[in-house]
Amino acid sequence: MNKREFDILETKYNVLADNDKAAMEVRKMCKETGTFLVNLMASPGAGKTTTLVRTIEQLKNRYRIGVMEADVDSDVDAVTVKNAGAKVIQLHTGGSCHMDADMTKRGMEKLDVSDIDILFLENVGNLVCPAEFDVGANKKVAILSVPEGDDKPLKYPLMFEVSDLLLVGKMDVSPVFDFRVENCKKYVEQLNPDMEVLPVSAKTGEGFDAWINWLEKEVKAYQEEER
Amino acid sequence: MNKREFDILETKYNVLADNDKAAMEVRKMCKETGTFLVNLMASPGAGKTTTLVRTIEQLKNRYRIGVMEADVDSDVDAVTVKNAGAKVIQLHTGGSCHMDADMTKRGMEKLDVSDIDILFLENVGNLVCPAEFDVGANKKVAILSVPEGDDKPLKYPLMFEVSDLLLVGKMDVSPVFDFRVENCKKYVEQLNPDMEVLPVSAKTGEGFDAWINWLEKEVKAYQEEER
Repeated sequence: MNKREFDILETKYNVLADNDKAAMEVRKMCKETGTFLVNLMASPGAGKTTTLVRTIEQLKNRYRIGVMEADVDSDVDAVTVKNAGAKVIQLHTGGSCHMDADMTKRGMEKLDVSDIDILFLENVGNLVCPAEFDVGANKKVAILSVPEGDDKPLKYPLMFEVSDLLLVGKMDVSPVFDFRVENCKKYVEQLNPDMEVLPVSAKTGEGFDAWINWLEKEVKAYQEEER
Repeated sequence: MNKREFDILETKYNVLADNDKAAMEVRKMCKETGTFLVNLMASPGAGKTTTLVRTIEQLKNRYRIGVMEADVDSDVDAVTVKNAGAKVIQLHTGGSCHMDADMTKRGMEKLDVSDIDILFLENVGNLVCPAEFDVGANKKVAILSVPEGDDKPLKYPLMFEVSDLLLVGKMDVSPVFDFRVENCKKYVEQLNPDMEVLPVSAKTGEGFDAWINWLEKEVKAYQEEER
């Protein structure tokens, strides 16, 4: 790819923005265009982009997929998801370690979501701050990867409290780590008894049927509600 | 361990604190007590605690080691490093995703560093915000673990710009990941040409001689300077 085929937007953090108001505006935009917005959150290197690439490949024949790549810097991930077949915008957060609703709204306006069924916000790699900000998404999905350790819900509880679904990623490398899914589930259950925990591997495709089913069920419920 | 053998301090973030002033006070405290302070930063699950445990084991016969465990919540890591033989305090950041100098200073006062030669601040697991705050440490050490990917310096540049040393952790699992140390070094060099990059495994001990040598050299230089 010689020419960059997506926009880059500098979404610097505006401390004066009213997050709740902006989140409502994001929800309104989503309703108007029938777009289902997923806020995807995880630590750096947990596999957000790889998970998105396989998700896009499995969904792109049935849905029009958009991705907003939020990064402090660089556009390597935007190139990757663009090549996977999504409509993409790169958001540069100007040092901010999370996305808020106002930044999300500006990203959606610039991307133009009128032709998007499912829009993923790949949040900045961070297990702390993104959990504090309602960006107006329909669902919040967190990824915890096997190499990070099964005790992370104890140490970063808010992320696990606020999310609707937890993907336990990089299951393919579980033989070389002592991550126990049952421990992770036990810690998560104490924080968020209703949250589903799905073990997946974006590399091998393990567990992806369950994740895609979950997503399609949620999208369908949203679309029927909007009718 | 039935009774908790370390203090827990609630170091909530004080937005009014003057970080530069507090960092100077931290440096002054370090000078007065001859304490060498290392700010250890990394993503969640990158192996900060495991690295500290092996480091403490290798140094504790020659130095009096202290650790300040900064976490949003929980005290699992404090128990672990206490058992390894360090003097420990648990700092709860009250939701804050990083330590600043004022929080560091309060932690040092509560811990009492007068009998500590090397003090490690295990920062909150986060590759973004901790890089922005000078806590007054003598040296900043970052860990990037193999499962996170060799492209992380591109995506989170500030951490790699401000650190004095990069440990590439979890080298024992490099056969199952496509992390290339030479790629990582190349990206790091563009940001911070002077930074050493040391591949290590806290599990097997690989590369620990080089890390311990680096640390002892820095501690010695600091102690001679103070005389």
